[in-house]
Amino acid sequence: MAARTAEIIAVGSELLGPSRVDTNSLYLADKLAGLGIEVRVKTVVGDQREDLASVFGQALARVDIVVLTGGLGPTDDDLTRDVVSDVLGRPMTLDESIVEQIRARFGRRGLAMPYINRRQAMVPDGALVLDNPNGTAPGLFIDHHGTIVVLLPGPPRELQPMFERLCAGPLGDRAGDDRVYRISLFVTGLGESNVDQIAQPIYARWRDDHVPSVSTTILAAMGQVELHLSVRERDEARARDVLDRARVELLAALGDHVYSTDGRIMEEVVGDLLKARGLTISAAESCTGGLLMSRLTDVPGSSAYVRAGVVAYDNADKTALLGVPADVIAQHGAVSEPVAIAMAEGIKERTGADVAIGITGIAGPGGGTPEKPVGTVVISVLAPERDAYVRTFRFLGARTMVKYQATQAALDRVRKTVGR
Amino acid sequence: MAARTAEIIAVGSELLGPSRVDTNSLYLADKLAGLGIEVRVKTVVGDQREDLASVFGQALARVDIVVLTGGLGPTDDDLTRDVVSDVLGRPMTLDESIVEQIRARFGRRGLAMPYINRRQAMVPDGALVLDNPNGTAPGLFIDHHGTIVVLLPGPPRELQPMFERLCAGPLGDRAGDDRVYRISLFVTGLGESNVDQIAQPIYARWRDDHVPSVSTTILAAMGQVELHLSVRERDEARARDVLDRARVELLAALGDHVYSTDGRIMEEVVGDLLKARGLTISAAESCTGGLLMSRLTDVPGSSAYVRAGVVAYDNADKTALLGVPADVIAQHGAVSEPVAIAMAEGIKERTGADVAIGITGIAGPGGGTPEKPVGTVVISVLAPERDAYVRTFRFLGARTMVKYQATQAALDRVRKTVGR
Repeated sequence: MAARTAEIIAVGSELLGPSRVDTNSLYLADKLAGLGIEVRVKTVVGDQREDLASVFGQALARVDIVVLTGGLGPTDDDLTRDVVSDVLGRPMTLDESIVEQIRARFGRRGLAMPYINRRQAMVPDGALVLDNPNGTAPGLFIDHHGTIVVLLPGPPRELQPMFERLCAGPLGDRAGDDRVYRISLFVTGLGESNVDQIAQPIYARWRDDHVPSVSTTILAAMGQVELHLSVRERDEARARDVLDRARVELLAALGDHVYSTDGRIMEEVVGDLLKARGLTISAAESCTGGLLMSRLTDVPGSSAYVRAGVVAYDNADKTALLGVPADVIAQHGAVSEPVAIAMAEGIKERTGADVAIGITGIAGPGGGTPEKPVGTVVISVLAPERDAYVRTFRFLGARTMVKYQATQAALDRVRKTVGR
Repeated sequence: MAARTAEIIAVGSELLGPSRVDTNSLYLADKLAGLGIEVRVKTVVGDQREDLASVFGQALARVDIVVLTGGLGPTDDDLTRDVVSDVLGRPMTLDESIVEQIRARFGRRGLAMPYINRRQAMVPDGALVLDNPNGTAPGLFIDHHGTIVVLLPGPPRELQPMFERLCAGPLGDRAGDDRVYRISLFVTGLGESNVDQIAQPIYARWRDDHVPSVSTTILAAMGQVELHLSVRERDEARARDVLDRARVELLAALGDHVYSTDGRIMEEVVGDLLKARGLTISAAESCTGGLLMSRLTDVPGSSAYVRAGVVAYDNADKTALLGVPADVIAQHGAVSEPVAIAMAEGIKERTGADVAIGITGIAGPGGGTPEKPVGTVVISVLAPERDAYVRTFRFLGARTMVKYQATQAALDRVRKTVGR
């Protein structure tokens, strides 16, 4: 029998409070859909043995695949292994080879393994152990009379590679022939309602014309709007063809506001462009406080094109570190187009980078004036054989939102300038 | 019998996809905790009659209060009312006064009420109708042999005022006089198992001694471990007293590793210390790529103490922008204690800041050597009237994890140096 329905159970009392969201289930829902597996119910349950036993038991009765996340740690609070073992009637034994791996992991940091970590080496009868190179808790994969039970660690950096490497294959094999194919378009520089207004008439046409039909979701994220399109279909070529035609239509309507159609985020798109053109980049930041450089350097391999940055928060430092003339600041104010250009010129001169960015603005909540309210940000971009770019933006939202949007606009301008 | 435990069930297939989060449950968890009601399980279920019936039936068996959100619309997909009526065995009748209200609502927008909206006027036997001034779907409040079942509309702008005006009172009355009080301790520089090993013996003593008893949760977050303590109690002063004593005990055991007991995150703690001491700060970053400065400047008002930063990714820029002697880099390597100190000295000299940080390391995934593997980070901190600090760390995890942990360790060292 094909395994086509799934439930996700996130374990941890902290996920029941007002401040935490179970993000693992979003990742898993996406991956499972990609395998043609439908998530029917998602549950968050606290660290209470009887609640977890009851929720898990009921899930077993409803679906083909139960994925549990979290509660695999070494402490008394971590009940997932114990409860699954009890409910399935599969007693656990200590796996010495796992103990050794955990011990070695602590050893690499010069630490002795605490005794309680032995709990993480307990394995229910008949379970496959899923290796965890990114943490101490191994995962478990159990085929229980045809129902699949998967236990994954809670931290996303451990869960995601484990799922990808060790679960996606076996689950996909059991799921049958339909797959869900997806594409996404990342849009920046337009608001959610603008994007929706442009996209809706196109969607409406698809509802009538396209076979197989395209499902659509719009999502406003920080600094961008995302369009997610998906098709459920057995024949990959047919699915790809429909999605390609959808992409072309949306690109024609949304134009250069679409910065990515392959899942790459802005800092990756910009990095790839710089690498392809053999260009280096530097930035002089004020209100963004280093976030632009930090985003650029989040990308593996970015040392190939990132030269250096200066964060000049204080006006005196804009002069000392970037050579911005004090009289230009005095005359136009620190948040002004001449200062943004002078910052970009200063960092370009000092580093010799090909592309240089200057950002100055008011991130808030203080510092605004009627003329230059909070959210005012001036961005300048210098690039070889291009006119100097400078523009004044007005961003809305809290301090960190203003910072992020400013870096997004600056990177988008680099994309448009270098990519042209 | 007091109603003290609750489950929240969010209804809607759109909440099972990869891009939507059930935010209503965060709001409700907060409000219910404030009333002394503990949320034990949260579930998201799609628009499938049998799934909802099974999830709802099981919740009824587990807790005193079941809150369902969404699925009260007029369409065939909106099943919540029907399923609750079936499971409770409370048949529905049409309430003409609700029909009139819905009709009037459409009328105010110059529209005729679609026939299907009559579904929203169906009321199960014995249910109280909760007026919805912000939408067409009224809520329902059912006392089912002592178990409370509440049905609320999905849109937050409808749900929140309805809960506040019409549910909080009756639920609070039934919950009794207990309220939940919380504190948290943020710990850095120790792993989750280490913190747990230290905290467990203290917890164990509380279990016997403390009245009221303290509930504890441990949570590993990026760069820190969090201990969340809560007390359920009628008398606020008594609750505060117990939590204060708990805090003192944990502080004595965990010592200087606890960096915050009032919810402030590291960059706020460091910022407040600098402000209180009248000190300014600058940073010279390599592998963290500006993240340290970005975190410092995320705090509103940080321009009072943040001077400037340099991100010198390239060795040539370490010399050009920070004056790190090229021969020191050649002799010791870019990731070395002499270079970290020279970076801190360079930024201190150029900005005149009181406190200066130097960070150099290998964030990965490339660039590691057997001697200096990926995750090796050297941190130096210079502060007035203190010896120069420098230490080599070894962090685990992906690139962005290494970056974050390095900034956390650097900020923590500033805290310890300046706070002493």
